[in-house]
Amino acid sequence: MKIDGRAYRSIWRDPGQSAIHIFDQTRFPHEFGVLALATSAAVADAIRTMKTRGAPLIGACGAYGLALAVSADPSDESIARNFDILHATRPTAINLRWALDRVRESVTSLEPELRGAAAFRVADGICDEDVDINAAIGRNGLQLIRDVAARRNGRPVNVLTHCNAGWLATVDWGTATAPLYMAHDEGIAIHVWVGETRPRNQGASLTAWELGRHGVPHTLIADNSGGHLMQHGLVDLCLVGADRVTTNGDVCNKIGTYLKALAAADNGVPFYVCLPSPTIDWTVADGVAEIPIEQRSAREVTHIAGLDAQGRLVEVALAPSHTPARNDAFDVTPGRLVTGLITERGICPATILGLRDLFPEAGRRHAS
Amino acid sequence: MKIDGRAYRSIWRDPGQSAIHIFDQTRFPHEFGVLALATSAAVADAIRTMKTRGAPLIGACGAYGLALAVSADPSDESIARNFDILHATRPTAINLRWALDRVRESVTSLEPELRGAAAFRVADGICDEDVDINAAIGRNGLQLIRDVAARRNGRPVNVLTHCNAGWLATVDWGTATAPLYMAHDEGIAIHVWVGETRPRNQGASLTAWELGRHGVPHTLIADNSGGHLMQHGLVDLCLVGADRVTTNGDVCNKIGTYLKALAAADNGVPFYVCLPSPTIDWTVADGVAEIPIEQRSAREVTHIAGLDAQGRLVEVALAPSHTPARNDAFDVTPGRLVTGLITERGICPATILGLRDLFPEAGRRHAS
Repeated sequence: MKIDGRAYRSIWRDPGQSAIHIFDQTRFPHEFGVLALATSAAVADAIRTMKTRGAPLIGACGAYGLALAVSADPSDESIARNFDILHATRPTAINLRWALDRVRESVTSLEPELRGAAAFRVADGICDEDVDINAAIGRNGLQLIRDVAARRNGRPVNVLTHCNAGWLATVDWGTATAPLYMAHDEGIAIHVWVGETRPRNQGASLTAWELGRHGVPHTLIADNSGGHLMQHGLVDLCLVGADRVTTNGDVCNKIGTYLKALAAADNGVPFYVCLPSPTIDWTVADGVAEIPIEQRSAREVTHIAGLDAQGRLVEVALAPSHTPARNDAFDVTPGRLVTGLITERGICPATILGLRDLFPEAGRRHAS
Repeated sequence: MKIDGRAYRSIWRDPGQSAIHIFDQTRFPHEFGVLALATSAAVADAIRTMKTRGAPLIGACGAYGLALAVSADPSDESIARNFDILHATRPTAINLRWALDRVRESVTSLEPELRGAAAFRVADGICDEDVDINAAIGRNGLQLIRDVAARRNGRPVNVLTHCNAGWLATVDWGTATAPLYMAHDEGIAIHVWVGETRPRNQGASLTAWELGRHGVPHTLIADNSGGHLMQHGLVDLCLVGADRVTTNGDVCNKIGTYLKALAAADNGVPFYVCLPSPTIDWTVADGVAEIPIEQRSAREVTHIAGLDAQGRLVEVALAPSHTPARNDAFDVTPGRLVTGLITERGICPATILGLRDLFPEAGRRHAS
């Protein structure tokens, strides 16, 4: 998407160059810089230190990391070693493992001198596929926004989102943001309510930043405000992303998503979840009962970092010292609260029948 | 309640002294100091600069302010002038106006030399009445906690609260916290989930502080977490305060209360609201439609103050500069989501019939 008028992806190679470029996301939203990564070690460090984040983006970045390693030393030993180093940077990231596997499998049967170029082609392909999937999600969601806009007579369509399912977490477009960018780019008046998404504030630090830089009108709100805005007719549509979707249509997403879905249901506001189909976990049915929720550091609740008056990034304590805190990273929104799932293949009800209808091959494979 | 083992009220006079004492709440929870206020001007300044806050406490403080003025100069001119100065510190605070009226009315028919002592007696009485009302709310709510505890077989009763309806906002006990302190003091195992209550974080800075200092087990959570905890059976009871309750039983309270009530209803968790009866607005029925919601500064969403590593109170920016933000201070929870209203007179359903049954004299006065 655009940053102050110039189009970017969140990861790219300049023509004829092997070094890849990413944004240093650790100082978002207060500063942003472009990092050039010319070695596998530099890529591993960037992933490990969370300079880059977001499942699809980590996968793409890892793929380039392995391609850089293969270009420098195409031996089997080099491939195996660098695979392990890159995989260890975020060992639970499914996308990273999947992307590294794809690069490795594509080169092992080739002569060493052909391996470097082949690895880069696979990494380039992973990026393009991600862009294509998100663009398809965007087109499917765009139709919903067009329908609402037709009823709004030129008044802005108010969309509420949560966390950052934006282009900064993918290669381009994002998932929940893809329909927003497409609607805005085709001239539909939209306005986005951005929930700040405590405790890590990805709404404030990432979603507000990327919407603002692309020029999409938006307003930051405390997470507590979502229900009140819906009660007063100020939300036409909710669009959120997903970390995992079960066969029941239950949606595991950033903590707080469930509360917004409850408010949407209570006020008759459509609540849609945007996801690429690999997010569907065909092995899990009941999300609340079956999905283990990551517990993160209490310090993310008791402390927060921000920019002081002198422009320094400072961490401050918000609670009395030694206050115990609990930090569940995700929650599960039952499918009954979800109006529909927006995938690259189309929109379906958040039910086993809806999902099987849209993905018959996967539904069949896992039915027993 | 207690601070590290010593019992306090949030406003008091030492025996034989006219100066009153309050806590300086502006640096809570990182520091707390006791302020001695010996003049009406000092009291006015403390209210204006929010060193003291909370409707009942502001009323009590204002009453003492006028008593100090009357003691220093019992003339009608002095009373009128100081009444106006004190009232202007928080002109929309109903309790402040009511308390000032009570002090003024009690002295105007007296000889000047009797006025000072009479004014102090009225102010002392306002404090004692507030303590009595909150203690009665506490006893009524305590019965609910005892009932839950009886089913928990010694495992802690988990109570979720929001914002600060605590003793620091009243003279003692608080409203939503009164049942908690009573349960804890009589040896019932309780544990309180404290929602941080963005954007002003009264949960983190006040409720966590006062529960911690009294010794009540508690855990701070992001507001987003409440629904997830309820889904997993980790909340037995919700207790919140109220800024205004309508005849329909709709509850206007700190922004985000509605979302917790929705989650409670969705998970079968009892959701009770604690309020002194003057909080009931017999002139309003539909809270969502009729109660205007205060819009506060966007800066409370985009910036936050906390203690840096050097112990300095620092304000930091959380969002990209110039990010627009909206800050609704309250929301309205429809009575249908409220299990019951806990008042000083008893517990009633959050309905017009429930309220009229408990307060027949007020119900009759306003029925038409």
